[in-house]
Amino acid sequence: MSIKLYCDLMSQPSRTLYILLKTIKCDFETKLVDLRKGQHFSDEFTKINKIQRVPVIEHNGFILSESVAIVNYLSREGIIPDNLYPQDSKKRARVEEFLEWHHIGLRLPCSMYFRVKQLDPIITGKQPEAKTVAGYENRMLQSLDTFSTKWLNQGHNFLCGNTVTVADLFAACELEQPRMAGYDPKEHFPAIATWAKKVQQHFNPYYDEGHVIVNKVINKQKKMSSKI
Amino acid sequence: MSIKLYCDLMSQPSRTLYILLKTIKCDFETKLVDLRKGQHFSDEFTKINKIQRVPVIEHNGFILSESVAIVNYLSREGIIPDNLYPQDSKKRARVEEFLEWHHIGLRLPCSMYFRVKQLDPIITGKQPEAKTVAGYENRMLQSLDTFSTKWLNQGHNFLCGNTVTVADLFAACELEQPRMAGYDPKEHFPAIATWAKKVQQHFNPYYDEGHVIVNKVINKQKKMSSKI
Repeated sequence: MSIKLYCDLMSQPSRTLYILLKTIKCDFETKLVDLRKGQHFSDEFTKINKIQRVPVIEHNGFILSESVAIVNYLSREGIIPDNLYPQDSKKRARVEEFLEWHHIGLRLPCSMYFRVKQLDPIITGKQPEAKTVAGYENRMLQSLDTFSTKWLNQGHNFLCGNTVTVADLFAACELEQPRMAGYDPKEHFPAIATWAKKVQQHFNPYYDEGHVIVNKVINKQKKMSSKI
Repeated sequence: MSIKLYCDLMSQPSRTLYILLKTIKCDFETKLVDLRKGQHFSDEFTKINKIQRVPVIEHNGFILSESVAIVNYLSREGIIPDNLYPQDSKKRARVEEFLEWHHIGLRLPCSMYFRVKQLDPIITGKQPEAKTVAGYENRMLQSLDTFSTKWLNQGHNFLCGNTVTVADLFAACELEQPRMAGYDPKEHFPAIATWAKKVQQHFNPYYDEGHVIVNKVINKQKKMSSKI
């Protein structure tokens, strides 16, 4: 079996797949696609993914993009164990229900806040208007409130019951992104803090390994702001 | 077997499920949740879906939200036939790859254009700034261009090959939404027009039946604008 994972650990779903494959002791090859260097727009990578995004896997020559489609496929192929992504139809439906909600419900507001407040100013050299940032922050806070009160706080340890699933890992990796723009959801939502610690513990040491670059960026920002 | 579909045919994924279930001759009960009357925020519906959105299904007492999770579940349960949603792992992965991309890639820009240009002014009584509408229109056009050139135009009749799948129906229903804000993608992208006609033909008479309300809204708008 041969699996290649095209990824950049600055991308949330790239981290999810990297941590997941490491945790399940899958023998895979990491192929770095450096987003900051625009390598996802190269002719070489466009041949692999016409949509020019990471992550992508190549499994025995079969190329597939879209992180949720990838975990669905790897699960069907017997590569992701049942405890992390159940084959039982109803249990699996609960995991999928969250994964489908999370695209626009959680991923979009958290990643847009990071992008507008942190990434775009670096790329364009222009600072966003305070009103614009506040709008994105407000939408992120609404999303985090829904996540905290309606998906968590259901009397379970994890999103889909008392055992961890791929849904928890997808969500946790998304919630790391706004930390790079100075906002840590764990500091504002106690239910998120309690849950996130359990997810991190379950997937460690690979969770921390997958977030080395993210944490470096955050530490660099903290040092810079302490010098001002 | 008992299936209830909680839906409002103004909602794109509600239409997708309605048309799909009708096409496959599934015996189901339609439970209208009138979004314009805010019935999705009622206590009764909130017990069915804590996220307060349609569509939702109830299958022999099992309640599930999120349209893509619903088709995955119904397919596993043998209710959606293999030709519309293949069980073969690689063929299914291609359908899922599109469905996962479409949330933020297609659904979001098309529905936001409709919402900002048409729906929000009705709800709030305030007209949006021209610059705001232009921004949303630009993002929708980029999305439609990607859809037309990278997902269609691959030498196949449909999104995932030469036979129609649930991916085509999901996409077609999304592309009807901006028509209610005066923009018909079929009039601007020839590849979309050719493909959309084939999708409509395949799912008719139910495709047109699912779009009766949408088409009424559009005809009413046309009459009003011809009087100005």
